Amino acid sequence: MHQLSAVALVCTLTPSPKPSSSELMARHVLEQLEQHGVRTSSVRVVDHDVKPGVQVDMGEGDEWPALRQQVLDADILVLATPIWMGHPCSIAQRVLERLDADLAETDEQGRPIMYDRTAIVAVVGNEDGAHKTIADLTQGLSDIGFTVPAQAGTYWVGEAMQSVDYQDLDQVPEKIAATTAGAARNAAHLARLLRTEPYPAA
Amino acid sequence: MHQLSAVALVCTLTPSPKPSSSELMARHVLEQLEQHGVRTSSVRVVDHDVKPGVQVDMGEGDEWPALRQQVLDADILVLATPIWMGHPCSIAQRVLERLDADLAETDEQGRPIMYDRTAIVAVVGNEDGAHKTIADLTQGLSDIGFTVPAQAGTYWVGEAMQSVDYQDLDQVPEKIAATTAGAARNAAHLARLLRTEPYPAA
Amino acid sequence: MHQLSAVALVCTLTPSPKPSSSELMARHVLEQLEQHGVRTSSVRVVDHDVKPGVQVDMGEGDEWPALRQQVLDADILVLATPIWMGHPCSIAQRVLERLDADLAETDEQGRPIMYDRTAIVAVVGNEDGAHKTIADLTQGLSDIGFTVPAQAGTYWVGEAMQSVDYQDLDQVPEKIAATTAGAARNAAHLARLLRTEPYPAA
Amino acid sequence: MHQLSAVALVCTLTPSPKPSSSELMARHVLEQLEQHGVRTSSVRVVDHDVKPGVQVDMGEGDEWPALRQQVLDADILVLATPIWMGHPCSIAQRVLERLDADLAETDEQGRPIMYDRTAIVAVVGNEDGAHKTIADLTQGLSDIGFTVPAQAGTYWVGEAMQSVDYQDLDQVPEKIAATTAGAARNAAHLARLLRTEPYPAA
Repeated sequence: MHQLSAVALVCTLTPSPKPSSSELMARHVLEQLEQHGVRTSSVRVVDHDVKPGVQVDMGEGDEWPALRQQVLDADILVLATPIWMGHPCSIAQRVLERLDADLAETDEQGRPIMYDRTAIVAVVGNEDGAHKTIADLTQGLSDIGFTVPAQAGTYWVGEAMQSVDYQDLDQVPEKIAATTAGAARNAAHLARLLRTEPYPAA
Repeated sequence: MHQLSAVALVCTLTPSPKPSSSELMARHVLEQLEQHGVRTSSVRVVDHDVKPGVQVDMGEGDEWPALRQQVLDADILVLATPIWMGHPCSIAQRVLERLDADLAETDEQGRPIMYDRTAIVAVVGNEDGAHKTIADLTQGLSDIGFTVPAQAGTYWVGEAMQSVDYQDLDQVPEKIAATTAGAARNAAHLARLLRTEPYPAA
Repeated sequence: MHQLSAVALVCTLTPSPKPSSSELMARHVLEQLEQHGVRTSSVRVVDHDVKPGVQVDMGEGDEWPALRQQVLDADILVLATPIWMGHPCSIAQRVLERLDADLAETDEQGRPIMYDRTAIVAVVGNEDGAHKTIADLTQGLSDIGFTVPAQAGTYWVGEAMQSVDYQDLDQVPEKIAATTAGAARNAAHLARLLRTEPYPAA
Repeated sequence: MHQLSAVALVCTLTPSPKPSSSELMARHVLEQLEQHGVRTSSVRVVDHDVKPGVQVDMGEGDEWPALRQQVLDADILVLATPIWMGHPCSIAQRVLERLDADLAETDEQGRPIMYDRTAIVAVVGNEDGAHKTIADLTQGLSDIGFTVPAQAGTYWVGEAMQSVDYQDLDQVPEKIAATTAGAARNAAHLARLLRTEPYPAA
């Protein structure tokens, strides 16, 4: 039986090795996916030179093709981003722009190449912006061909105009932990279904 | 074998019997669902007195409970809306607000009551606003427990600042028709999978 | 010298006389406007029968025309809304839809009829959604012809997935109060400037 | 008498010298501003190494500080962006993130440093996404302290799922040209008012 796999694209603006709330939230999602037998890996996108553009390969020095291969190799994509100015951050939008090229890529059955993959969105911020960030990213990922499970977004933000980070919390609030667990459980279930019975061709 | 069913909630601002572009787009989605053996029905929400509020039943005269029952009875929800000011219209937002109550409703396994249902979003406008409208609605529907298939949004809008309606078109452009067909095909497939193998409880 | 005036359209889903967090937030904005010599009034939109549609008057029983007149009579519009599902509520969207008609209405100089008016957006919610709600509403209001002052949005939301209301707070947090005061101060200044020197005609 | 100035930050994903629809749209806005006596300049952001982060200066090699100085030196900011996946592109979001630092910067009166500046948003895309892109950007710019004139957004997008670019058009449609002219006229007027009578301090 096929073992499911997941990759997290962590879109923090902060390069390694500094700690990142987005990365921590992604890790919490991945830990939950592992409970369902999913093999996981994670990459911090800002550590790589992902060129601006909307083609699969933007040429010399572009490190997106290697990241894209990790998405293609996985059944589940976890897209994790901080909120800045109320929006998905520029790195997350860059990832969407690079995935946009895959709208035109099709498999041997003529289906968009990202079909049968499932996506989760994980969002952190000091305050406000999570629902909108989840909306922007799930719409983009659905467009590209990913399937969005029930309650596929997990998030933490503080009260209005506050400045605490997710990684500063003494412990993850129970409701957030339950939402993270639910998103992972649903994604694993759906990924397994789509692995067994892929979307039909037109 | 269970026959799948779909209900379209058509959120035009225009009461029956006047023609409606949202209703026409919904019908095009339903026709495609029927090609996949899905039994369909449609309701124009503005013809009913759906009270403001966020409870399952807002009391005397509230016609939402009957509409909600149609959603509960279906495997697939088609949420069809016009764009006004770049946003889902007030009727579509009203539907989300009323569905919000179902976040707190659970089935006998403790799962949100809308789980295992699949949603498609269908959007029309004179110009601009479809992606954002799809984003707002799919995020809301995913929150409530619906699953969003690959490429689950279909839409038509005219060029910037134009005033032609979807129902004024001589024929549906090929790309729009293909997108509508794809959304329906994917929704039927996913609904069948989730009917056979529902999401597990926590 | 002309005394400036402001009207708040309060878009809570809850009819009077029940208390409303949106109304409380609107009152806090109006109190600050009064500090700058602005005469104020407030109306709870849900208490009126505002028909669906995008014309100035939707016919028999439509109470929008009287509300619209209050907007036309004022220099400053305060649009106050709760967040539901991460979005401006259905009543706020209804207000935008009705104001949409005024895009086609022009004054004797051929300018859109809402020109020279200034708008503030005030948003409350249990958790998350304020920036997006402010974005949706200010974009709509700017389209219609309102001018948006610096830092024109004020809001309060709780931490992720919490359920406290703005009206439940023992006191308004200092940063929120300062933001409310700033939005009002800037709106009064800008309204005064535009009253003295209106936008030129084309 | 002070001559007003404007700078366009052009957020195309395409480095110079390739032609860009965003740059063309920005030029059309600047030409209109020049009709009102405004001195203009323009910079293509992608030609500069604008580091990820939310501080005024992200250190060695960061070219944002020079761009930021151009914004500080101008009375009017024209933020021009293409739409990708229905959103402002990653470069435009990067600009917002870098301007976010200026929320904490204040002038000698304790006011946010970007106060008294006016902003216009100019958006182009093959199809759909303009209103949402304008909403995201004007909300961000208002937060930072910019003032948004009446009808401050101009845009062009094609019909749903089409692929023509703004720069491919034989001529700019009349309504788009009128909208561009109006946004510029209003911005020049408002910038002049705010130059003469700045927002008061708290």
